[in-house]
Order: sequence, then structure tokens, then C-alpha cells
Amino acid sequence: MGEPIKYDRISELCELIERLAAFTDEEEEAAIGKGVTRLVYSRAWKEAQSYLAETMVAAGLSVRWDKVGNLIGRLEGSNPHAPVVLTGSHIDTVRNGGKLDGVYGIAGGIAALRLLMETYGTPNVPIEVVSFCEEEGSRFPIAYWGSGNVTGLFDWQGGHDIKDAGQTTLAAAMEASGFGRPDQPECLRSDLGAFVELHIEQGVLLERMAKQIGIVEAIVGQRRYAVSLKGSANHAGTTPMAMRVDAMAGAAEMIVRLEALAARNASLVATVGRLQAVPNTPNVIPGAVDFTLDIRHDNEGTLSWFCDYLFQEYSEIANRRGLKLAITPWLETKPVPMSRTLASHIENVCASLSLSYRRMSSGAGHDAQLFSQLCPTAMIFVPSKGGISHSPEEHTSPEQLANGVSVLVSLLYELAYEGKSL
Amino acid sequence: MGEPIKYDRISELCELIERLAAFTDEEEEAAIGKGVTRLVYSRAWKEAQSYLAETMVAAGLSVRWDKVGNLIGRLEGSNPHAPVVLTGSHIDTVRNGGKLDGVYGIAGGIAALRLLMETYGTPNVPIEVVSFCEEEGSRFPIAYWGSGNVTGLFDWQGGHDIKDAGQTTLAAAMEASGFGRPDQPECLRSDLGAFVELHIEQGVLLERMAKQIGIVEAIVGQRRYAVSLKGSANHAGTTPMAMRVDAMAGAAEMIVRLEALAARNASLVATVGRLQAVPNTPNVIPGAVDFTLDIRHDNEGTLSWFCDYLFQEYSEIANRRGLKLAITPWLETKPVPMSRTLASHIENVCASLSLSYRRMSSGAGHDAQLFSQLCPTAMIFVPSKGGISHSPEEHTSPEQLANGVSVLVSLLYELAYEGKSL
Repeated sequence: MGEPIKYDRISELCELIERLAAFTDEEEEAAIGKGVTRLVYSRAWKEAQSYLAETMVAAGLSVRWDKVGNLIGRLEGSNPHAPVVLTGSHIDTVRNGGKLDGVYGIAGGIAALRLLMETYGTPNVPIEVVSFCEEEGSRFPIAYWGSGNVTGLFDWQGGHDIKDAGQTTLAAAMEASGFGRPDQPECLRSDLGAFVELHIEQGVLLERMAKQIGIVEAIVGQRRYAVSLKGSANHAGTTPMAMRVDAMAGAAEMIVRLEALAARNASLVATVGRLQAVPNTPNVIPGAVDFTLDIRHDNEGTLSWFCDYLFQEYSEIANRRGLKLAITPWLETKPVPMSRTLASHIENVCASLSLSYRRMSSGAGHDAQLFSQLCPTAMIFVPSKGGISHSPEEHTSPEQLANGVSVLVSLLYELAYEGKSL
Repeated sequence: MGEPIKYDRISELCELIERLAAFTDEEEEAAIGKGVTRLVYSRAWKEAQSYLAETMVAAGLSVRWDKVGNLIGRLEGSNPHAPVVLTGSHIDTVRNGGKLDGVYGIAGGIAALRLLMETYGTPNVPIEVVSFCEEEGSRFPIAYWGSGNVTGLFDWQGGHDIKDAGQTTLAAAMEASGFGRPDQPECLRSDLGAFVELHIEQGVLLERMAKQIGIVEAIVGQRRYAVSLKGSANHAGTTPMAMRVDAMAGAAEMIVRLEALAARNASLVATVGRLQAVPNTPNVIPGAVDFTLDIRHDNEGTLSWFCDYLFQEYSEIANRRGLKLAITPWLETKPVPMSRTLASHIENVCASLSLSYRRMSSGAGHDAQLFSQLCPTAMIFVPSKGGISHSPEEHTSPEQLANGVSVLVSLLYELAYEGKSL
């Protein structure tokens, strides 16, 4: 490529991020704390999206909303019918979350498009920045409502049976926000040439390895299970050890085994995040224990083999202990590879910008995983302090944020101005 | 001894037990289920004690109440000032408990005294049967309030700072029931020659070994601890295994270790009954886990050594994993040996009655453990079906209940009529 483009309007970027962070649910703030709570179709959400629309217009972009409330800002290309280069992320948050998760990709995209337009004028092909309406699944029991409608996973008319904790349907909330109207632009896109998502890592790898940029090669596949063990509740004092069918001891052995098996697979992660014992009383041997498994890897074969092997071991443990074992799958997503070509481009950009980088998998799900089957897709990560996310403590330094935008700007230049092949 | 005395008034015994089971808290029954809930100084408690007093009188005993509401029925001896042979147990229950725990020892004692009087008339020394007012600690945060006042562990005037969940003090409840008056007989006894408690095993040993009678050699010592582990909560997907400080994995390793170490000590029991993880969410690595330890053995040296060794191992595990470990002791009781002489007498009685028996420790605490320092003390166990107790499913067959009374009657005869040495 030619000279890489360094983004240095750090305070402008941070100011936009801070302003968006102010759009938060005040009741949640009073109840839980100083994090950001911005649930889809809430008042805070509407205000944030409106503010983003104004910002996009001020940046010289033409703005539109689709049927589910995704907000798109477009920098027209000299070839307006060419496949669009899309960037962006999601505007909603978890409860009491951070300022960067999702927002960084939108703010970074707007900043990139503005710099490109001011510096290079009209691109060859259109570039768009999108603010997806919903991704986290924090209000309704459905995630990726924004990108899902853009990629065809969901139908915008399908929200009538999905209710939040207050029994409001997704459809009703959408309509009350002014969306779901037939005259609004369709969500589903078939005109995309590429999708690039800029995001915080939400993990510790880049920080520990002291790298500035993460080049995502794949989004891991996930398997989640509910494991249920049934033994015999009994008196803790009067039941000899050899006569026990202790569900807690069985669960403990299974958790230790999970850790040992995961250790043999360099990039596999496996977690028991939740455990519930019954009756959960100090002087009663637990008669039942339920625990959750969350297993992730970027190779479907490895993931599948690992779970099969693990469950064979769990059957052996349960049988040996006389426990009844039930394993219920409740989530399964396949790994999603990112575009190798785009990853290579990003690598070159980083080298040109003298930014250290690391090729890695994303251990968390993102909007990008839905685009992979539609068009070449890429994700650019910046470090997260302490790996913290979904928390007001979420943090990335301004310089690191600017580095990420530099990479995005340079990549978008290559794709939309230089016509770099995909 | 002479001919052993077989108790065969099975229906009479069972009828008394059933009648006492009817004295239960109606609100609890409606809320939780068909078990017995009879908390100290409640209405159900007063009615049960009154009914027992009538039963004792009808059995030919002279009846008195002490200052805390212990009910005593006395069969006068021809030597009224000789040390008293005392038998009995507690009238209160846990919430939603069984019909036998405590009640069996009282009903069995009344039945025994009645049979002895009718068959042999006046004993040499007085025999008394006691219904202790409270043992379980199910209403107030204090247990053994009945036997504790008899043996000097507690002072009947000490109930002003002890409150139940409704903020009623023990002293107020006691007074409202008509007790705590200066003119009532003192609780503390110094005139006891022996204490014998008949009780259900509340464990599976007698049933598994197919023995009819348990001869308790000791009541185990107990150590209970709260273990607190602190690691780092983090994203389950984005945190590599090698970079985790997982409190759940650490707790699991400790629970497995506990089980392995306990297995090396034939009669030691060790239980993790309760575990709580934070934040206890499927996709977050637990940053903190609290769990309880309940460890019991009939030898203080073994118990002490075991806990020291265990905690050394726990420190090693915590250090290796980078976890912060805190172990807080919250209960410690020493083992209490029962009288060897009485145990021998019981053994001979069983042999004479052709009842199979097993010498064993009691894994649960009982009123008897407070008497050991006052006078020769013994406990006689009968089997518990499935080891179940503290539950409406608590059960011992009528024949097995009658066997226990046969042993009690024969022993009391030896001690009070024959003047068997202690």
C-alpha cells in the first residue's frame, strides 16, 4: 500500500465515546452503579441513536434507518452501485456495562469515514458505517437482532412471541420506537462487498502479550450444557464415607477433569461458571448438584471431539459413584472463520503503521460472525485493560483506541479507494 | 442378669408416638408439608408437653417441670435419696421433621417405666424419664437448651440476648409459656447416677449391617469451617486457561482432595454441604467461591491432625493457583466417650435378648453428650430406614422400636432394681 493513514484526532474520538456513554438508563444507574445500561428500544437507546444520526450527518454522511432501527451512515462512492464496504458495531449494552463494547466500533467507523472523506474525497465504492440496534440479548431473550436482520438470520416481523421481563414484546417495543413500518428500508442486504468490525478484545491476551492490535482469524464455536447430577442427600455426621452418593463430590471430580482435559488443547477454553447444590446445607450431603459447561474453540472438529470425550469421562465418573447424570445441550454455535485475505491486508497495514499485532481467535461472539457467509469479513481488536468487559471498569487507553482507528482507516482506504482485491 | 425383659406392647408405643406427632405447627404444615414442626415454647410444644405430662401421670409417675420447661416423670425408689437413673430425650423438632427424632426416647422411657412398675413394683433407686424442652436449635440460635440447663452448660436466666427470626427473645418465649419463675424447681442436677438415651440412628449403618441395636461408644467431635476462595472473575470465552485464576476450579480440587484424605481414615466423615460461587453465571469464570466443611471423628487427636493436614494441602492448592484462601472456624466440639461399663451391660442385654448389635459412634450430636461429664452415660440406637431423618420420611419399624425399648427396660432393671455396678 501507499503511506498508511495514522488517525490522531484522539480527543475527538474519546469525546464521542464519552457523549454516547451518557445515554444510559437512570433507574439502573441508581440501582446498580456507574456503568452504562442502554437496552434496545429504550429511551436511552433512542437518544443515543438520534445523537449518532446527528454526528453522522455532521461528518458528511447520508443517513438512513432500516425497519428494525439499525442506523446507517453512507459515504457515497463514485460507483454508487458497487458492493458496499461496511464497518460498525452495536449500540446496545449489557446492564451496568462499559463505554466501549460496541460503541468503539461505531465511533471508530464514523471517525474513519470522516477522515477519509476530508483527506481523499469520494471513494470508488460506497463505504457505510452501521450502528446495529441490538446484539447483547440483554433486554429480550434474543441476541444479534440488528445484524441478524441485516444478514437474514432473523425476520423483522418475527418479534411477536419474544418478551422482556416486563412482558413487552419485541415487536411492540420496536413499533413504539417508530420502527417496523413497511415504508422503511429493508434490513436484508445483498449489496455488501466486505464487513469490518473494530472492537475491544474483552480478554487479556493482547495486554499480556503486549500487542497493540489483534487480527481475528476466527470467532470460536461455543457449546453450552446444563449438567445435572443426582445422588442421595443424607446426614453429614451419620453416613460413612463409603456409603455415600455425594453429588457435590461427583461434580468436583468432573470440574477437575474438565480443567485437566482442557489443558491438553492449547486454545480450548472450558468453564464451569455456575453451580447449585441441593439442599445446599452445611450438615447435609448434597443429593443433587447442577452445573453449567461453557466450552469454546475455533475448530469444530476439536470442539466436537472434546465434548464427546468429556462426556464419556463424565459417564464413567457418574457410574463409578452411583450418580444419575443428565447432560442437556442448550447452545451450540459453529466456529466462524474470518477472511484470510482481509487478515493479510490488516497484517500489512499494521506493519506499515509499526503497530505490533497478534493473530488470534475471538473468544466472544460478535456481529461479524453473522456476516462471514455473506461477504469477506474481518475483525480488528484493541487491548482491554485486565481483560475487563461488561463492567464500568472496561478500559482501553486513548492511544490504543486511536491505533485501532488508524488500522481501520488504512484498511478502508485500501478497499474503497485503492480497490484492493478481496 | 436374670431373664431379659422383652417389651411387646408395640401398638401402645406406636400410638403414643403418633399422638405426639399430631402436635405440630399448622402454618408450617400448610407451607412446607406433612412433617412435624414443633419448636420450643410454641403452642404445639406446650400441647405436646401437656399431653406427655398426662401420659406420665396415667403411667403412675409423679410429674414436675423445671424452670426452663423440661418435664420429668419420676418412679420413686425405695431409697429415694439414691442417685437417680435418668432416661429420656427431647420433645422439640426441626422444621418439617419426623415423628421419632427425640420423641422415641421419651415415649420409650415412659413405656419402660410403666412396664417396670407394673411388673416389678418399686425400684431400689429412683428412675426418671425426662422430656427435654429443646435440643435442635431450630427456633433460636442455641441448641441443647433443655439438657444444657440440666447439666450446667447454660444458665436458665441467660436467654435475654437470644432471639428467633421474629425477634422474640428466648427469655420472653420461656416466660410466656409459664416458665422462668423463681419458685419452679432448679434445672441443674447433681443427683444423677446414670443417663441413658434411646434414639433412632439417623444413619444407614445398622440397616446396611443388618443389626437391630447400636451401642454407642462415643459421640463424635465436630469441626465446621467456612472456606473462602478469591480469584479473578473474567470472560469465559476470551480468557485463556493458563491465564485464569478460577475460584471454582480451586474449590473443586479442594473438594476432591478432602474426599481422598477422608478415605484414609476409616471412621472419619467429611462433607462439603454448601457451595456458593460469585457471580454464578454460565459465561463468567467464578471470581469467588465460598464452601463449608463439616468434619467429624470420635478421636480428638485424629480430628485435629486431619484438619491441620487438610489446611496445609489447601494452602498449597491456593498458592499454586494464585487464589486467596481464608478458612474460618465456626464450630468445634470435642468427642464425648460413653460409659464403657454401661456399654458392656447393654451388650450383655442384647445377647440375652438375642438381638444383633453393633458398637459404633454417633455421628450426630445428642443430649447424652452433655451428661458424660456428670455421670455414666449411654445411648442405645435403633435402625433408621434409608438413614433418613429430619424429614417426614423418617421411619423405623414397630418391631425395631420395640426392640430398643426391650433393651432399655432390661438395662434400667439392672441399674435400678438389681443395683448393677457402674
